[in-house]
Amino acid sequence: MEPIRVTVWGENRHEQREEHVRRIYPEGMHAAVAAGIREHLDCVVRTATLDEPEHGLTEDVLAATDVLTWWGHAAHGEVADEVAERVRRHVLSGMGLIVLHSGHLSKVFTGLMGTTCTLRWRNAHDRELIWTVDPAHPITAGVPQPVVIDEDEMYGEFFDVPPPDELVLISSFSGGEVFRSGCTWRRGHGRVFYFRPGDQDYPTYHHPDVRRIIANGVRWARPVRPERTLPALRRHETGEF
Amino acid sequence: MEPIRVTVWGENRHEQREEHVRRIYPEGMHAAVAAGIREHLDCVVRTATLDEPEHGLTEDVLAATDVLTWWGHAAHGEVADEVAERVRRHVLSGMGLIVLHSGHLSKVFTGLMGTTCTLRWRNAHDRELIWTVDPAHPITAGVPQPVVIDEDEMYGEFFDVPPPDELVLISSFSGGEVFRSGCTWRRGHGRVFYFRPGDQDYPTYHHPDVRRIIANGVRWARPVRPERTLPALRRHETGEF
Amino acid sequence: MEPIRVTVWGENRHEQREEHVRRIYPEGMHAAVAAGIREHLDCVVRTATLDEPEHGLTEDVLAATDVLTWWGHAAHGEVADEVAERVRRHVLSGMGLIVLHSGHLSKVFTGLMGTTCTLRWRNAHDRELIWTVDPAHPITAGVPQPVVIDEDEMYGEFFDVPPPDELVLISSFSGGEVFRSGCTWRRGHGRVFYFRPGDQDYPTYHHPDVRRIIANGVRWARPVRPERTLPALRRHETGEF
Amino acid sequence: MEPIRVTVWGENRHEQREEHVRRIYPEGMHAAVAAGIREHLDCVVRTATLDEPEHGLTEDVLAATDVLTWWGHAAHGEVADEVAERVRRHVLSGMGLIVLHSGHLSKVFTGLMGTTCTLRWRNAHDRELIWTVDPAHPITAGVPQPVVIDEDEMYGEFFDVPPPDELVLISSFSGGEVFRSGCTWRRGHGRVFYFRPGDQDYPTYHHPDVRRIIANGVRWARPVRPERTLPALRRHETGEF
Repeated sequence: MEPIRVTVWGENRHEQREEHVRRIYPEGMHAAVAAGIREHLDCVVRTATLDEPEHGLTEDVLAATDVLTWWGHAAHGEVADEVAERVRRHVLSGMGLIVLHSGHLSKVFTGLMGTTCTLRWRNAHDRELIWTVDPAHPITAGVPQPVVIDEDEMYGEFFDVPPPDELVLISSFSGGEVFRSGCTWRRGHGRVFYFRPGDQDYPTYHHPDVRRIIANGVRWARPVRPERTLPALRRHETGEF
Repeated sequence: MEPIRVTVWGENRHEQREEHVRRIYPEGMHAAVAAGIREHLDCVVRTATLDEPEHGLTEDVLAATDVLTWWGHAAHGEVADEVAERVRRHVLSGMGLIVLHSGHLSKVFTGLMGTTCTLRWRNAHDRELIWTVDPAHPITAGVPQPVVIDEDEMYGEFFDVPPPDELVLISSFSGGEVFRSGCTWRRGHGRVFYFRPGDQDYPTYHHPDVRRIIANGVRWARPVRPERTLPALRRHETGEF
Repeated sequence: MEPIRVTVWGENRHEQREEHVRRIYPEGMHAAVAAGIREHLDCVVRTATLDEPEHGLTEDVLAATDVLTWWGHAAHGEVADEVAERVRRHVLSGMGLIVLHSGHLSKVFTGLMGTTCTLRWRNAHDRELIWTVDPAHPITAGVPQPVVIDEDEMYGEFFDVPPPDELVLISSFSGGEVFRSGCTWRRGHGRVFYFRPGDQDYPTYHHPDVRRIIANGVRWARPVRPERTLPALRRHETGEF
Repeated sequence: MEPIRVTVWGENRHEQREEHVRRIYPEGMHAAVAAGIREHLDCVVRTATLDEPEHGLTEDVLAATDVLTWWGHAAHGEVADEVAERVRRHVLSGMGLIVLHSGHLSKVFTGLMGTTCTLRWRNAHDRELIWTVDPAHPITAGVPQPVVIDEDEMYGEFFDVPPPDELVLISSFSGGEVFRSGCTWRRGHGRVFYFRPGDQDYPTYHHPDVRRIIANGVRWARPVRPERTLPALRRHETGEF
């Protein structure tokens, strides 16, 4: 099989503006995510960020992307509607999508889900434990039970997303909250994986298990068919097959 | 329990403009849908149509609606974005929604689904058979196996919706096509039922089994909780419970 | 609607043999479960226990039961295969089933699930928090977010059951474990709800929220159709409808 | 990746006893299934049949099998309980399982499902059309819409299986019946794919699309983890991670 073509999208604002984030991710959070994917997969990874023209997500880039990963937080509103809709169309046409952490409120994700995608949260150095509840799922290959993240932001239920097609991972936090932290949905010809960890204040994307799960997600979300076509309304005569 | 408060929304254009539709539904398609629901449920039913101010779907009307049914076709584009968004917000806040036939391309439904909601079709007097595939579901109470509709428009797969949370009914057509014709989704605090039959050219909403299924859907989609609140992003301190 | 006919089945051994359990449940755990259901529903509740002839679950009793609740622990092996199979047949024919806590290893439940139904556990006075993850589900009506149980046995993932058709509740424990503690499955013409809390060493079935959830489960699991028939292999001629 | 190790199990009785079946499948139905898999995958395929010692499914054979395919019909009752249970244990421990056509009533499949697995049927040369309803699923790669099988036995709903985790394919038949003909379930550490076509009276396993779907199923069901372990009840101390 051909190497998977991955585009890692990062908002890349916190790293510019906040010294403590830059210390954790000197080359940007997207660089850490990209490195984690490269460690585990036969792939070609490029990165793209908000401040590039068309946010780095031109029609050409997306057409050459098998799987896109998305991290955004402070600037969801600055993503152009046209680009968000372009990404959504590519997902429905077959491109895989991995949405990370605060990407839950991005235009791309909420547009694909149809719900508010809101949740309960607290940024207070909770310990997170990530439990596998679907050990037959390829996203869990090589993942310990549980994954321990010493500290990260807390996300808790109710997470207002459609019931996932597959619930793969559930997190608990020091405060006692729980969260459906690894979820998949099929949409049109494409597949979506949401994975919770990764607030900018913590070194989460250097965590080996987190990197492995993201890479497993990319492999899983790879398109099934070679062509990229949007499902369409079509009249069919009787007996044409 | 209190009677269910139902609002039946009808586009009500074909009935105005096409003599053969008016002959089938002299008081409008919405009147037939409303009559079918009244036959089976302890309920209070009102109707609303596109040409009323705010399409008859003011904040007050929706706040007093437990379950809304939606039939539209020729004029999806004339539904105000603001009203479509208001309906979506009420569904996510707990209101039940029954989407009928060509309502699959309405702003309300596509907004809640996040996909194109497109499908294969043909208006050629196909016979439709509706098969129950989930006999434990309340929507199938009293429904024969199969339901026979002598003629209606054909809808076929691929129907580009999220995999339903519950697949209740599957149709076949004379031409050999199949369709997931009774599907449910939970969205936010609300529940959605899509039911396929009912092109304006055929007397489908006079069919006793079709009426029963719609009424069963209304009963099933009734809100679970008394208040209507939209899920929201909320910060919670450690240990507040 | 007619009152729901409920049979509460209890193993009723710990209460006989262990003084501290008897102090918590002087009339037996089944009596507490039955009282909780009566508080919330229009119903007729009877109880049945292991040491009765046929464990109190004769064909006549089951035929007159809309919903059966099941709590067992120390004596799963003493339940006659014939009775377990009779219960399974009634569920597949339409009877509702609520399986409580350690009932996860009962012959009835494992036979319906097809998996080992094993899990991680510890009896060490963990605090349990139960979170609603499907607020549109009738089982969550009137249930606080979260339910707090001061102490109970811990059950953790991986819980080896089929992915639930609906995941309604997730628990966390003081130790950091998580558990899918409110799950539903449709099987044949019947519906099954598994609800986790309730070790015999703790007063869990006196907890008002636990009682409400069990009662909500009973109401939800009520049979959809009047007759009780087992799905069967059947030859059908072409064109008989 | 290593080649997938596949074991194709065939009952191999009709081929021995019925001249017209032997004409279609001179080397046995299992040989045709095996050839179809070999056409599409990098794999090592062996076959096993009912009349071999332990039906050819010793502990050693299963331990060296990544994915097992199962076709049986006339002699389900002759499969030893011990072997059926051994297969079930291997599936729950991670082995993939593809169940074909009349295998729906096998001990292996009904034991994993927990339901009657009964259905409606007729052996009358119906044309079958197989429609993809989940085009994002790897099992549909390269599969036309629809697959046309000129004649085969009819299977219709209600098919008494647990609602599939993924519904991939739906069939219609000349008589108007429909059937969920491509279904997946996760069970324990393993994955199961049921695929409908293939009565012994028809040359279905020579059909190129049928062969491709079976091969896609094998690739999809490949185990996720290297070791084969049955989920087990296990006590865990607080704080051991």
